[in-house]
Amino acid sequence: MQNKKIVLSESELPRQWYNIQPDLPDPLEPPLHPGTGQPVGPDDLTPIFPMPLIEQEVSQERFIDIPEEILEKYLIWRPTPLYRAYNLEKYLGTPARIYYKNEGVSPAGSHKPNTAMAQAYYNKISGTKRICTETGAGQWGSALSFCCSLFGIECKVYMVKVSYEQKPYRRIMMETWGGNCVASPSSETKAGRTILEQSPNSPGSLGIAISEAIEDAVTHEGSKYSLGSVLNHVMLHQTVNGLECQKQMAIAGDYPDVIIGCAGGGSNFAGHCLPFVRDKINGKDIDIIAVEPTSCPTLTRGPFAYDFGDTVQMTPLLPMHTLGRNFVPESIHAGGLRYHGMAPIVSQLVMSNLVRPIAIPQLETFQAGITFARTEGFISAPETDHAIAAVIREAIKAKEEGKQKVILFNWSGHGLVDMAAYESYLSGRLADHELAEEEIKRALKDIEPLPKPRQYRV
Amino acid sequence: MQNKKIVLSESELPRQWYNIQPDLPDPLEPPLHPGTGQPVGPDDLTPIFPMPLIEQEVSQERFIDIPEEILEKYLIWRPTPLYRAYNLEKYLGTPARIYYKNEGVSPAGSHKPNTAMAQAYYNKISGTKRICTETGAGQWGSALSFCCSLFGIECKVYMVKVSYEQKPYRRIMMETWGGNCVASPSSETKAGRTILEQSPNSPGSLGIAISEAIEDAVTHEGSKYSLGSVLNHVMLHQTVNGLECQKQMAIAGDYPDVIIGCAGGGSNFAGHCLPFVRDKINGKDIDIIAVEPTSCPTLTRGPFAYDFGDTVQMTPLLPMHTLGRNFVPESIHAGGLRYHGMAPIVSQLVMSNLVRPIAIPQLETFQAGITFARTEGFISAPETDHAIAAVIREAIKAKEEGKQKVILFNWSGHGLVDMAAYESYLSGRLADHELAEEEIKRALKDIEPLPKPRQYRV
Repeated sequence: MQNKKIVLSESELPRQWYNIQPDLPDPLEPPLHPGTGQPVGPDDLTPIFPMPLIEQEVSQERFIDIPEEILEKYLIWRPTPLYRAYNLEKYLGTPARIYYKNEGVSPAGSHKPNTAMAQAYYNKISGTKRICTETGAGQWGSALSFCCSLFGIECKVYMVKVSYEQKPYRRIMMETWGGNCVASPSSETKAGRTILEQSPNSPGSLGIAISEAIEDAVTHEGSKYSLGSVLNHVMLHQTVNGLECQKQMAIAGDYPDVIIGCAGGGSNFAGHCLPFVRDKINGKDIDIIAVEPTSCPTLTRGPFAYDFGDTVQMTPLLPMHTLGRNFVPESIHAGGLRYHGMAPIVSQLVMSNLVRPIAIPQLETFQAGITFARTEGFISAPETDHAIAAVIREAIKAKEEGKQKVILFNWSGHGLVDMAAYESYLSGRLADHELAEEEIKRALKDIEPLPKPRQYRV
Repeated sequence: MQNKKIVLSESELPRQWYNIQPDLPDPLEPPLHPGTGQPVGPDDLTPIFPMPLIEQEVSQERFIDIPEEILEKYLIWRPTPLYRAYNLEKYLGTPARIYYKNEGVSPAGSHKPNTAMAQAYYNKISGTKRICTETGAGQWGSALSFCCSLFGIECKVYMVKVSYEQKPYRRIMMETWGGNCVASPSSETKAGRTILEQSPNSPGSLGIAISEAIEDAVTHEGSKYSLGSVLNHVMLHQTVNGLECQKQMAIAGDYPDVIIGCAGGGSNFAGHCLPFVRDKINGKDIDIIAVEPTSCPTLTRGPFAYDFGDTVQMTPLLPMHTLGRNFVPESIHAGGLRYHGMAPIVSQLVMSNLVRPIAIPQLETFQAGITFARTEGFISAPETDHAIAAVIREAIKAKEEGKQKVILFNWSGHGLVDMAAYESYLSGRLADHELAEEEIKRALKDIEPLPKPRQYRV
């Protein structure tokens, strides 16, 4: 009988995260203070983040020790299994060998707790009593609620109102873990009240929710703010995934020719790929593919520029691919991929030609998810379906070319709390949406593309 | 760092199921044909089950080989991890060492695929093209749809109408795996149409759904029927769980003093406990506890009698603890525990004093589930919460007695598709319901307790 999974023992759990910053061929551009236009310093960030996370944000150490208390909590679901997709390979008739990392085994059902646990810990040891955050579809808010409950920290989540009403399951998960979840805009912050006065029926947005969470954090003693993607320290924590994959691929006796992950804010993609990007920088020939939706094509159609992380322009200006802070993507079901920006690290890897972005339309991704469920068994999150669609494209290409490629991808989460999306697809109510050039131009009208400050490898 | 999980390698997956029948101190009473009152023979069952399953139903072989094709599919989620509940222990301040088996890692989220995969396989090799079944809350229907999809068999599920309408997620899971799920009573069977003529707005019942599924199976060429609990072959397939636990407890260097599982139809409980019941028969001192809801106290308050498996009296008469085929339990949220009967094997183990049944009220079970989520991280199915509540009782007892007991329980599934139940609890909308003696008497008025045909060890 062939091995289906490669399972590491607990003693093989990585003891360090990998920080790609010292290995980047093109150093990161600094985030800028929106008022002064100068690089943001630690003092600008201390009101919202604890010092250990601020230090990690700019660290140039290649490997950073994972504290014992985080390792202990990681063991609740880590190391996660690496699967060989025999049934999918057989169904596609491809000579490719397909591997997938199953991050859906965490209590929250996705990769998100990899950083939520670390952030809860560093806040705990820094004296934080309460963490505020925003959440769109609810993946991040539930992951943070879960991790805060284990460290005895209060968790306050501002959830975009339209999701709060349409996706009660994620909200109830947060409450089950003791989190306090309110619909945003809420009457609990000045930002929320202002919006509600202007438009009492506002469906909310991630931008508004970020503003509320930051305001809440800075106006309450003992409170801090937390972000589930985009920032460097978030990418860092997620690398525990890719580091495990490297050990597991070695046990399998294979090495990936192609690595694939979906990219919204970039954390799932980065966590899976960064350790392999290091190999690529050191000479390995790997095609590393970031998959985004055609309806929110940040990497494939947005410029690399300084832009705000939120719509209300409260965050520092970040150097990233962006569709413009006012861009409102179609309401596709993969809520985690509906972000106007992208992690600076991922953006810069694209600029340096180390990562290849592609965009895939929604219907193809759901079809891929159905194929995966009926061959490999697991029902994937709609975000994850984007990665699967790209895998199927690559596997078919390998078949056409007669190449025995090795394809590795990140199965970032299960879709059991997203079944309404599958119903929309199965009942034929979903459509594809290709963005017109004018729509993108309109969204980008205030964005100044970043002049390349040094020679990127593109 | 202490080990949190004991994870078996794929090569340690059990190669055989354990059949308790030859080890029972009191042999099983036979099922009876309702017309003749005589024991049911294989010929009575061939229209609805394939021959290999009928043979397993009455087999006296102690160990039965698991076919290679099933083992391969089991590897999608098996072996499942055994956890040490350090955080729960610490929270309770108990000297007890608590272990739990995580069956929630299967694609369907519970233990159900252990038998669904076996049943799909044996149907496949027997030429079945299509399997019909019923489902209440949807756990079983979704597990069977998942397994049928991997063997290329059509799956038709009659889902109790009230659940079909209230719990769309499970239905969509079935459809994602290619299953065909209809609300029962349906217009697709004579049984369904008869009910609909009498009461067009019937909310349906498990009894009606069973009738529809059996009628569908016997009236369609190439179709068979499948049951997800109660029968001996279902208990057999589930023992892969307990057999893994025995290996894992040995690795942990511990042996359980107390074993706990929730019991609805009995399959989750039996699968976890039967290999340990064998040890108990051979002299080990173990307290093996089956937990049921106080609102459906089949084992604790129902007599051991011959009764029908369904309300419309189509099945053979089964020797089991029963509250009467017409008993309609309160609509508690643990749908999988709302069954009037109990597996004959489990029933007889209670009669033989090898298993100790207890009943726990609903509110205590949800409180236990919340405690578990906030300490161990995982959100449990409401059924599983019954086991957790019993574990907490035992752990507190161990604390009071100052005993270092070893407690093992079956974490039979996650609750991510049952969040509405948690919301009802968290918002204070749930109540306990203690059954009055008259209610039970009324439900049992047609049931003749089985005269003990031989000396049980009670």
